[in-house]
Amino acid sequence: MSDATILLKGLTDAARRAARGLARADEGVRNNALLAAAKALRVRTDEIVAANARDLAGLSADRNAAFRDRLTLTSERVEAMAKGLEEVIALPDPLGRVLAQWTRPNGLHFRRVAVPLGVIGMIYESRPNVGADAAALCIKSGNAVILRGGGESLNSARAIHAAMADGLRAAGLDEACVQIMPSADRDLVGALLQASGGVDLIIPRGGRALVERVQREARVPVLSHADGLCHTYVHASAKPDMARRILLDAKMRRTGICGATETLLIDSAIAPSLLPVLVQDLAAKGCAFRADAKAREIIPSLPLADAVDFDTEWLDSVLSIAVVDGVEQALEHVAQHGSAHTEAIIAEDEVVAMQFLNGTDSAVVMWNASTQFCDGGEFGFGAEIGIATGKMHARGPVGLEQLTTYHYEVIGTGQVRG
Amino acid sequence: MSDATILLKGLTDAARRAARGLARADEGVRNNALLAAAKALRVRTDEIVAANARDLAGLSADRNAAFRDRLTLTSERVEAMAKGLEEVIALPDPLGRVLAQWTRPNGLHFRRVAVPLGVIGMIYESRPNVGADAAALCIKSGNAVILRGGGESLNSARAIHAAMADGLRAAGLDEACVQIMPSADRDLVGALLQASGGVDLIIPRGGRALVERVQREARVPVLSHADGLCHTYVHASAKPDMARRILLDAKMRRTGICGATETLLIDSAIAPSLLPVLVQDLAAKGCAFRADAKAREIIPSLPLADAVDFDTEWLDSVLSIAVVDGVEQALEHVAQHGSAHTEAIIAEDEVVAMQFLNGTDSAVVMWNASTQFCDGGEFGFGAEIGIATGKMHARGPVGLEQLTTYHYEVIGTGQVRG
Repeated sequence: MSDATILLKGLTDAARRAARGLARADEGVRNNALLAAAKALRVRTDEIVAANARDLAGLSADRNAAFRDRLTLTSERVEAMAKGLEEVIALPDPLGRVLAQWTRPNGLHFRRVAVPLGVIGMIYESRPNVGADAAALCIKSGNAVILRGGGESLNSARAIHAAMADGLRAAGLDEACVQIMPSADRDLVGALLQASGGVDLIIPRGGRALVERVQREARVPVLSHADGLCHTYVHASAKPDMARRILLDAKMRRTGICGATETLLIDSAIAPSLLPVLVQDLAAKGCAFRADAKAREIIPSLPLADAVDFDTEWLDSVLSIAVVDGVEQALEHVAQHGSAHTEAIIAEDEVVAMQFLNGTDSAVVMWNASTQFCDGGEFGFGAEIGIATGKMHARGPVGLEQLTTYHYEVIGTGQVRG
Repeated sequence: MSDATILLKGLTDAARRAARGLARADEGVRNNALLAAAKALRVRTDEIVAANARDLAGLSADRNAAFRDRLTLTSERVEAMAKGLEEVIALPDPLGRVLAQWTRPNGLHFRRVAVPLGVIGMIYESRPNVGADAAALCIKSGNAVILRGGGESLNSARAIHAAMADGLRAAGLDEACVQIMPSADRDLVGALLQASGGVDLIIPRGGRALVERVQREARVPVLSHADGLCHTYVHASAKPDMARRILLDAKMRRTGICGATETLLIDSAIAPSLLPVLVQDLAAKGCAFRADAKAREIIPSLPLADAVDFDTEWLDSVLSIAVVDGVEQALEHVAQHGSAHTEAIIAEDEVVAMQFLNGTDSAVVMWNASTQFCDGGEFGFGAEIGIATGKMHARGPVGLEQLTTYHYEVIGTGQVRG
């Protein structure tokens, strides 16, 4: 075994032991840990800000202002971190929920009960508070967590971790419920990805390169999304004003998030009258376009899309446009080009809307709403550790409930199968 | 790309197209396909039995009588296969179930709805009817399936597949909803295990070597169990008669199934009086034993267990025995030696029983019942495609509902996030 593997095993063994204790801890104990951790964050504010200053001082000159800003922790941001922990306390306990129960003719009573997953590996980039947020959700859902933040924020991560450890200790929990990687060694990440049995789930949050590396190499199950190539389909029956309002929000509210609409699909029946207005609205906000031939028949000045544009997640003020003939063509386009993230239809025709909702397999399908609602807070989950687009276990925003699994409790009175 | 990869991609592309159509098919259409397939199995009985005879004739002499029997299809077994399909028709439709729904303050209405996984790969050994059973569950749950049975039953598999194809055609569904591997080429299995994106889930059913190969090599998510090292813990408060009846069933009803109890844990408070009786009951049925030192103090003639025996799934008439001091020691033993499959406690003390139920993370935990109840039929699922002990997506018996995932339908009236 390599050094990294041995080191990682030490972490996962400790996490596994800690997880067993945490799984049996009452909600009150878990909440106490979060309360005490929030307090410790506030008490340690100066220390955290100073550690962060050391990280910032060590930043390479290549890093731009946006990156520096994401990395920066002010006392206000530490306060926000503490408040975030307190908000998690207020969320309902996801453990012990009885998901289903039934009794068989032989009298055996079955209960499907929510339990923690066990040990979660959280790999993230740039913003140091993601570590605190993730740790809070893991503790609340009874999971031990191993945190691996960006290499450039190691001092910040250690200072934040010290506060989390204070909280665990104060509540009488094993400090190994929250651990951080001891160094930025990439081999440690590699070992984490291979640690089947030691880690139950890995959640990567960050840029495409990170997520794709994790998806490619991990033997451990991963909840993630790489692409958010979302579509908004304006059906012939759409109310023009609603279409204008929704599309503007779906494309331009924040262009860099996974729920931003990247492609507009518009029915040929409504395109001649509505497309010019939609384009004008977006152009006024600085949006650029890539359009198919049919769209350019309506607005010749639109740049022509090439083949790869409809498979491109712009994460910018650029919108791909295709004119389609009806909902089946729209569904076909989504199936060919989408990433199973979020799609929306704008329509007054309920039959067509249902066809669209039933006809696509994306994690989230919306009728008469903006794709930008794909977010744990907007879903009412209270908190979100990430968004998943895979098919197994959890899809869409990953909140507290999605960090649990279940097992069966079977209550008998001496039944044998015979 | 290798030949196997290219060939496999042809299968998965066809399956993916078929799955898209199947996902939108009404329950009636899916049931019609099963009804027509059952009819076709009966019509093709002679052909299936003849194909099976060719497989049996080609069997190597190494294969024992039990193996030959598992491979054999008589007209009675074909009839049982057809009846099995009809039983799946009667099960409730797992698709379209609304798993949760809620409305947000902004008026957005959320529904979490059950949808098919997509494309399932079913890898199985020896019994040809597993292919028909699995195909029925997949069709009913809206999934396309690629079947890969044992290399020695290829003719049988093809004949059964012809009947399934008849059923799909009669119902107007794409025949590629059910496909079989064209040959026994092991490289094809390897390609299937790597087909992320082409296949959504792989379910292996067979011996340890098969399951472990799949778990080791698969990039695609797998629902499986390798080990069923189940424990029955007799607490000091157990009713002796109940303990005797349950343990006899749990160990000896069928020793070769994953739900058979492999280790007896018995409280030191009750062992002196009860252990001799339990051992006598089991010995009378031909059971052998491996006992720890404390058990041998009570019954010196018991063979001494060595270190590895408590980590051994006997799948035979052998029982490991350990004497423990209370439920926490029992839980510790289970955590160290178990395979997270099924554990049972026999007790009258409800507090202790709850401690046991809450204190182990196994897929199934039972109170006053035999571990042999870990079975989809006994759970009331109506049918079972396998048993899973992993943490993600589904644990315990995998029935129709576990072959689905979900997505969110979000119904708005023009909301924007703003």
